[in-house]
Amino acid sequence: MAGSSFGTIFKITTWGESHGKGLGVVIDGCPAGIALSEADIQKFLDRRKPGQTKIATQRKEADEVEILSGVFEGRTTGTPISMLVKNTSQISKDYSEIASCYRPGHADYTFDMKYGFRDYRGGGRSSGRETIGRVAAGAVASLALKQLGIEVVSYTKSIHDIEINPENFDPTAILETPTCMPDRDASKKAEKYLAECIENMDSAGGVIECIVKHMPAGVGDPVFEKLDANLAKALMSIGAVKAVEIGDGVQVACTNGSLNNDAFRMAAGKVTKKTNHAGGILGGISDGDDIILRAYIKPTPSIFSAQETVNTSLEDMELKIKGRHDPIIVPRAVVVVESMTAITLFDALLLNMTARMDNIKKFYYDYSDK
Amino acid sequence: MAGSSFGTIFKITTWGESHGKGLGVVIDGCPAGIALSEADIQKFLDRRKPGQTKIATQRKEADEVEILSGVFEGRTTGTPISMLVKNTSQISKDYSEIASCYRPGHADYTFDMKYGFRDYRGGGRSSGRETIGRVAAGAVASLALKQLGIEVVSYTKSIHDIEINPENFDPTAILETPTCMPDRDASKKAEKYLAECIENMDSAGGVIECIVKHMPAGVGDPVFEKLDANLAKALMSIGAVKAVEIGDGVQVACTNGSLNNDAFRMAAGKVTKKTNHAGGILGGISDGDDIILRAYIKPTPSIFSAQETVNTSLEDMELKIKGRHDPIIVPRAVVVVESMTAITLFDALLLNMTARMDNIKKFYYDYSDK
Amino acid sequence: MAGSSFGTIFKITTWGESHGKGLGVVIDGCPAGIALSEADIQKFLDRRKPGQTKIATQRKEADEVEILSGVFEGRTTGTPISMLVKNTSQISKDYSEIASCYRPGHADYTFDMKYGFRDYRGGGRSSGRETIGRVAAGAVASLALKQLGIEVVSYTKSIHDIEINPENFDPTAILETPTCMPDRDASKKAEKYLAECIENMDSAGGVIECIVKHMPAGVGDPVFEKLDANLAKALMSIGAVKAVEIGDGVQVACTNGSLNNDAFRMAAGKVTKKTNHAGGILGGISDGDDIILRAYIKPTPSIFSAQETVNTSLEDMELKIKGRHDPIIVPRAVVVVESMTAITLFDALLLNMTARMDNIKKFYYDYSDK
Amino acid sequence: MAGSSFGTIFKITTWGESHGKGLGVVIDGCPAGIALSEADIQKFLDRRKPGQTKIATQRKEADEVEILSGVFEGRTTGTPISMLVKNTSQISKDYSEIASCYRPGHADYTFDMKYGFRDYRGGGRSSGRETIGRVAAGAVASLALKQLGIEVVSYTKSIHDIEINPENFDPTAILETPTCMPDRDASKKAEKYLAECIENMDSAGGVIECIVKHMPAGVGDPVFEKLDANLAKALMSIGAVKAVEIGDGVQVACTNGSLNNDAFRMAAGKVTKKTNHAGGILGGISDGDDIILRAYIKPTPSIFSAQETVNTSLEDMELKIKGRHDPIIVPRAVVVVESMTAITLFDALLLNMTARMDNIKKFYYDYSDK
Repeated sequence: MAGSSFGTIFKITTWGESHGKGLGVVIDGCPAGIALSEADIQKFLDRRKPGQTKIATQRKEADEVEILSGVFEGRTTGTPISMLVKNTSQISKDYSEIASCYRPGHADYTFDMKYGFRDYRGGGRSSGRETIGRVAAGAVASLALKQLGIEVVSYTKSIHDIEINPENFDPTAILETPTCMPDRDASKKAEKYLAECIENMDSAGGVIECIVKHMPAGVGDPVFEKLDANLAKALMSIGAVKAVEIGDGVQVACTNGSLNNDAFRMAAGKVTKKTNHAGGILGGISDGDDIILRAYIKPTPSIFSAQETVNTSLEDMELKIKGRHDPIIVPRAVVVVESMTAITLFDALLLNMTARMDNIKKFYYDYSDK
Repeated sequence: MAGSSFGTIFKITTWGESHGKGLGVVIDGCPAGIALSEADIQKFLDRRKPGQTKIATQRKEADEVEILSGVFEGRTTGTPISMLVKNTSQISKDYSEIASCYRPGHADYTFDMKYGFRDYRGGGRSSGRETIGRVAAGAVASLALKQLGIEVVSYTKSIHDIEINPENFDPTAILETPTCMPDRDASKKAEKYLAECIENMDSAGGVIECIVKHMPAGVGDPVFEKLDANLAKALMSIGAVKAVEIGDGVQVACTNGSLNNDAFRMAAGKVTKKTNHAGGILGGISDGDDIILRAYIKPTPSIFSAQETVNTSLEDMELKIKGRHDPIIVPRAVVVVESMTAITLFDALLLNMTARMDNIKKFYYDYSDK
Repeated sequence: MAGSSFGTIFKITTWGESHGKGLGVVIDGCPAGIALSEADIQKFLDRRKPGQTKIATQRKEADEVEILSGVFEGRTTGTPISMLVKNTSQISKDYSEIASCYRPGHADYTFDMKYGFRDYRGGGRSSGRETIGRVAAGAVASLALKQLGIEVVSYTKSIHDIEINPENFDPTAILETPTCMPDRDASKKAEKYLAECIENMDSAGGVIECIVKHMPAGVGDPVFEKLDANLAKALMSIGAVKAVEIGDGVQVACTNGSLNNDAFRMAAGKVTKKTNHAGGILGGISDGDDIILRAYIKPTPSIFSAQETVNTSLEDMELKIKGRHDPIIVPRAVVVVESMTAITLFDALLLNMTARMDNIKKFYYDYSDK
Repeated sequence: MAGSSFGTIFKITTWGESHGKGLGVVIDGCPAGIALSEADIQKFLDRRKPGQTKIATQRKEADEVEILSGVFEGRTTGTPISMLVKNTSQISKDYSEIASCYRPGHADYTFDMKYGFRDYRGGGRSSGRETIGRVAAGAVASLALKQLGIEVVSYTKSIHDIEINPENFDPTAILETPTCMPDRDASKKAEKYLAECIENMDSAGGVIECIVKHMPAGVGDPVFEKLDANLAKALMSIGAVKAVEIGDGVQVACTNGSLNNDAFRMAAGKVTKKTNHAGGILGGISDGDDIILRAYIKPTPSIFSAQETVNTSLEDMELKIKGRHDPIIVPRAVVVVESMTAITLFDALLLNMTARMDNIKKFYYDYSDK
């Protein structure tokens, strides 16, 4: 089946394997006239690069993006934007181990069941490198959102049981701490914990939070294409995410209506909510408040301690994974969560332009001849 | 935008407002030759009917389904199955209150922001009655899954802080307790808690769990159409769901790789997993183990105590909701979760038939002339 | 597969069999705020009703439409519009003949090959009655286009070798002649020819032309979603259409570039074309000129003379079709062509609103808070 | 809008501008296990290369394809196949003329109307080079069809008024004549006519025919996704196609039912048709007979004689096009028609696997554990 596309109007199609010739994305349906350069994309891609800190792998991946189409004289043309990142450091390795067995927590076994065989080099299509295309597209969506005054901020909320303290919240820390935590103290603790994980040949999980500011009210849809439903899919489609929540999320199961309902109040001539348990979405449609999302990320499945598993000849075996692997997925996934959120929201904003006939009439009478 | 369809091959389109002439669904792409009667559908619909227990509203809704097309001589024909449930008890009411103000926790405000106005009668399209079409379609998907040996079981896992005890698990209790809990003791406690909620003019939330047994391995897709991503969307698209998790879900954030990885072992000539933290899905593709899902449901937003809100003239006001409202959404949503899961899985199974060229060849050489 | 939907934003899903309980359509994605009544729809449906003239069957089909959802206080709400036409005169017939053999020129054989069996009553899903849903949806699309100043006119251009004379063109004749020809003289001749066909137990084909006036320039898409490509699909999806052309159509194969190119000239401050060989579409995008389409319709396959065929036991046989059948499909298909064109164009106009980032910005800054 | 994708299961997304960095395609949903090499693709691409004969432009375009993903150890993996053709000879040109005016018969004007500006280099996205991605994908679809025993043959049927003589039909001539005519005599005449066109600074149109052999019966869909409707869209989406027909096509308008109906007869234990006026499709579903399609192609709009037009400052002007342009589009479009047909049919075959529940059951019980 065709499962590598996401979005309806602003539609992205990613391709590429971890250790193949390269990875990339085609963005179809991007509006014309957005100023766009390779540097804009690179800035986003650099946030998911490995080899940068002690808690990430020491691999050197240049991951330089090249725009192949859809941009002319520095602006998007409205035609497909094809972007390519060539694989450079992924060459010549010994894959015999991963080729002949099923790594626990990985998709090796399920790929073989589905396709009959798999490109086992570096995890192939199920590698974390698959997100390169998402992030390149997310950079474009974020630029477009910014032009509409909408801001998406994403960061590490917790690593294992170490959580950020809202009182220490410092947005500049997100890009400066190796954990992408907006709390330098919490980050220190988490770094220490991760160092222990490495020593124990183990790995850790965590939570990524994403906040969307200045989203206009009235965007989304009431039934299957609820804004939160699409955001849930967007985030759950990221490898290693095992739970997604909106607003108070799992907490709503243990509360009461009198506590969970957000009272509406007028403030400065505008409808506002006194609280935001809903996380900015009511009935699948944005309510104008901050949208609040959380993704729960499992520990890196590639650990260095011995594991029981099965080989492709269907015999029990013991596996000791070699190579370089991050002890945690969370920090590098922060920009992926941000990208998927931006893509989902920009698409929803485009779709929403057709909600009312009077606006459609205004649009065609005001703009169509210009 | 067109947001009332779900699925790719087995595609459903729901329609209808709470207090309009009726509600229904068109299933397009249902394979030909499935034995199907109105009684099969009715059995599912009756599970979401109100007016049946103390903890549900005393409304009488017949909710009788009529199959209008796509079934001939007791079997599906492969053409669209249109099903209709006429509204009967929803006539002649006083809607002045709900028409002129924005109920907290409801979609009244966001509908007005999106569409400019709304059908306010009984919540219109954002009413829980919208799920009638989903459940009617879910009944068909469940019948199809049964023919493939796949079983979907859904039940209430917890209400507020009262959780079922796995040791008391009794599947027959699901359809017999008013809470849809598979644990009669826990159900008693929950019923008592809900009686208190009613007295306090308040409402409660809870958790629905869904287990899929005998799912073949290899079904799903590696990137955006991950099986878990589509299940997350399916569940999050149900009104009042605020979080969705697969397998260990939110717990994975606080565990380690050595604990979270499920070891593979051969057993009875088959690849099995020693544990199932993953919840039956690896890399977006089913691994042959039970699929385990959970949906977190918020408390009913319609509560009888006074609430602050805003009216459509944008003035602050105090609202006291009248009428009949369940103190909890969970029990009636159990069959909705089961339906959305069944629809998602059956669609994925259909899509998966094209994964391998050798199977496609066998299919056309073996079957095409029969 | 799911093949009963058409459109991306303004998306219709039709359902129903010729002699089942009814037929209908769900329109999803219709903008909110369009004034709409059952009478608006009925006017369109009445144009495809049989039993009205000598050249059409003497069946009495009331074909009365009921709007079940999506309209509140006389206006579309933005949620799905479900419309139902109950079958009334299609009851109690002898279908033994059509059940047990494959009528030449019909889909009986191909349905059995695809689905294994079929609802043979009156042709089931492959009956011309399937177009009821298209026409009901076309009525809505036409109303919306009218609000944008766009007019779609459709008529019979020729029946067999009798063609309308452009000099006699009289638009009022379209709804008044039994042939739907806008030329009363040609219509007379065609009626006479069709009377002969009836006497000869034979049937005739013809051509339907569709003209779209005041379409704004710049609507459509450059590659697969070319406006003409979607119009071609829309028209070819109507049963009995065997060829579709745009502008000069088949004639372009025998002309030269110097004759076929339409020169641009300024006129009244606007870019215009001196000729319109292109039929209003260049590179898949509207050029502001009239859009000109033609559909070639085959003769009614149900003829009363004896025909060779095969029965479902795979034996040769001779078939003499009984019952009531029009000697020509063309006049009743005129409103179907018009409907499919309107649906295609309105959807394209909605999709086109997202083509330019500067317009999207204006839209959200101008409208979003209203 | 997102208009650069085609297909549902076997879905292609093309990208690239005529004189940008390159052009390409991503095939998503290609089944795993098809033997595929760059040479397989190149063979198809070479059929649309220019610079090969007197009647085509003397441009040298290497158009060498590179497979970037989705193929491992010589077989498709089931993940997206990304293919790239770098532009090499398209560098450094003077585009001032084409940038500042609207060429008659081209999409320059309509692009500006839609997007506000355009990549004018060599026609940008509306160039014939856009078909490179289609042909690369068509090569893969053709290989897959061949494995199912299905053959697609495409050729030039006529150029201007010079038509092939069925009695001279020689399939080897298709790849050997510069016109792609399967009749060497007709080709000679056409070449002579085209030489005259060049001398007259003019261009010519023609007709491409496509025959599909050994298509199984029962493939396609009854309503909007009729096999002929999708083929019509596929062909009409090719630049310069102005009419599409199936079987007898435009001729059906002037015939009678008694002549146009194809009688069924048993032959060698199989249902056959005595004639094939229908062109292998009845009611949108294949009938097992040859599928016969025709596309009518307009003359090359780039002609060297002076033309009236308008510049981007909206002033009348006279244009004399320079550069190298084919006097006819037809021969180079033959492989494009063949490719689009192959893509459409393979996708329909994949979708058709889910038509019957009994086949789905056989599939999962027979194959799923292997």
